[in-house]
Amino acid sequence: MTTSSLIEDAIAAIRPLDDAAMGAARARQDTLTKPPGALGRLEDISIQVAGITAQPVPRIGRKVVAVFAADHGVTARGVSAYPAEVTGQMLANFEAGGAAINVLARHVGAEVRVVNMGVGKSTGDISTGPAMTRAKAEQCIEQGIAIANEEIDRGATLLGTGEMGIGNTTAASAVVAALSGHPVRQVTGRGTGVSDEQFDHKVRIIEQALAANAPDAANAVDVLAKLGGFEIAAIAGFILGAAVRRVPVVVDGFISSAGHLAAARLCPRVVDYTFAGHKSQEPGHAVVLNQLGQLPILSLDMRLGEGTGAALAMSIVEAAAKILAEMATFADAGVSQASGSLAAQP
Amino acid sequence: MTTSSLIEDAIAAIRPLDDAAMGAARARQDTLTKPPGALGRLEDISIQVAGITAQPVPRIGRKVVAVFAADHGVTARGVSAYPAEVTGQMLANFEAGGAAINVLARHVGAEVRVVNMGVGKSTGDISTGPAMTRAKAEQCIEQGIAIANEEIDRGATLLGTGEMGIGNTTAASAVVAALSGHPVRQVTGRGTGVSDEQFDHKVRIIEQALAANAPDAANAVDVLAKLGGFEIAAIAGFILGAAVRRVPVVVDGFISSAGHLAAARLCPRVVDYTFAGHKSQEPGHAVVLNQLGQLPILSLDMRLGEGTGAALAMSIVEAAAKILAEMATFADAGVSQASGSLAAQP
Repeated sequence: MTTSSLIEDAIAAIRPLDDAAMGAARARQDTLTKPPGALGRLEDISIQVAGITAQPVPRIGRKVVAVFAADHGVTARGVSAYPAEVTGQMLANFEAGGAAINVLARHVGAEVRVVNMGVGKSTGDISTGPAMTRAKAEQCIEQGIAIANEEIDRGATLLGTGEMGIGNTTAASAVVAALSGHPVRQVTGRGTGVSDEQFDHKVRIIEQALAANAPDAANAVDVLAKLGGFEIAAIAGFILGAAVRRVPVVVDGFISSAGHLAAARLCPRVVDYTFAGHKSQEPGHAVVLNQLGQLPILSLDMRLGEGTGAALAMSIVEAAAKILAEMATFADAGVSQASGSLAAQP
Repeated sequence: MTTSSLIEDAIAAIRPLDDAAMGAARARQDTLTKPPGALGRLEDISIQVAGITAQPVPRIGRKVVAVFAADHGVTARGVSAYPAEVTGQMLANFEAGGAAINVLARHVGAEVRVVNMGVGKSTGDISTGPAMTRAKAEQCIEQGIAIANEEIDRGATLLGTGEMGIGNTTAASAVVAALSGHPVRQVTGRGTGVSDEQFDHKVRIIEQALAANAPDAANAVDVLAKLGGFEIAAIAGFILGAAVRRVPVVVDGFISSAGHLAAARLCPRVVDYTFAGHKSQEPGHAVVLNQLGQLPILSLDMRLGEGTGAALAMSIVEAAAKILAEMATFADAGVSQASGSLAAQP
């Protein structure tokens, strides 16, 4: 499907979740000092992490949020409330530690890795032609795979996706419209905060982008090349790379989810390796989560990106793993179990 | 309304939120390097914490989850899947650090304070008579106030409620049915996991409790005395005590919410000082949240109690406060703002 053997190799190397580890984790959950199932999604998450890592009692160590930043040629069409130079200014803010993602990553004990995918040299204006060549899109995906490998080689055991790029809700909506088949208006939102009139303009620009590029919806790399951003393609690769290495990835909001949807089209199994960190206020996000069959961990009306929702949700994933690793069993603690007929309940 | 001057004094000492601090926090949020409102509920939470603490930039330091434990006479009627001795066994588990609340509190950097409100000497069987005397109920509320004061004197800046007591979903459903006026069946759930048949039995027992005690719905202390648990009354007091001292409280799930509802009936303003930590799977919890006008922070299908939902949500409240304290402003970071007409948007 792609001309890159690196991408093809990654796709081929992604295996199913480990059933034995999941079975052992599920069985262990039912021996812990709580009614079976009483920790709800924390239990499900812990079992999925066991399946991802192939460890019955997975331990989360180093945590990294990778923030992929890039500029978008379509900003020339007035789709954002902010000027394009803000991408570069925010990159400096990330490096100085003053952005929301820095605060939230510090709070949950995660590191921030900023990846400059093309700040200052933007994609083409998608309303008139392709964002990038197919070769460039493959190169961005490969870079995402390489970043995942680097961070995992340095000990990362839980990854999060993040992004920065003025104009990138426009690119993400275009990618999601193309891949999902949903009308542009249904997958387009206010981004950083445009008015009603500017929203209508944004929808028209994205409709022009689809008409001008005629992407092949069945070919995710073609869609990324024609409509995407460098950072969206890199996120797709980052998720694929993490899945190859059996490291869980918490996907942030709408823009990250566009990369996630592209990755899932390249390799449907990749969705088993990810968690939807939160439910963004961007309307296209619900469409993607529905197509991926994922329920978000958090729902806090956030719409900032940067990986902020992923960072907070990474702490919940880590908490879930700790439940499995650190709670006493009924036998350990000398606590009486439920009466026979009840203990057998699901 | 009560015969206790300590409780009456607490109620009288709870002041409105600090408008000046909230206004300053709201104004500061709009100078931080993000689109206005883009952090959604984190922004609202930070502004509420400013109002609670009367500090424009509140700092969260020591965090404590108070776990109030007590036994319930109604367990003799077979309302729980677990034997009554589990309350005491779990108390030992809390002290040993092996319970879910220990794991989650450690994860978020909170301490666990276990408060034995009457383990081994249970309330009366509410299906035939009152849980306790009115004097005892007032004493439990006073103890809750005292625990809040103790922890705040030791430096706690964010509190969470938790509880343990086999049979206490039965007591909580009875309290919530009486205070809310909702039918018993609508506010009763499976607790630690009873069967359909046992559920019907639990509903009948609670209906008997309401009939046998004829509580005065307009008098929260009467309701707590006749139907409550020692721990539920203490939680009501704990919340009142924290509000007097202007310390935010994260309320856990259904059982804690029964204490919260009672506190709110004694002093409606107390609700401004609290956050609903999570949405429990117990159906009565939604009824209470609706009556209190609160949206839960988390929704993870948990139904364990102990303060587990509160602990995870305390970390979100702390994150919200850190956003206000630690993020760079547009001016600090040299980031361009949105164009005039857009920056003025809400």
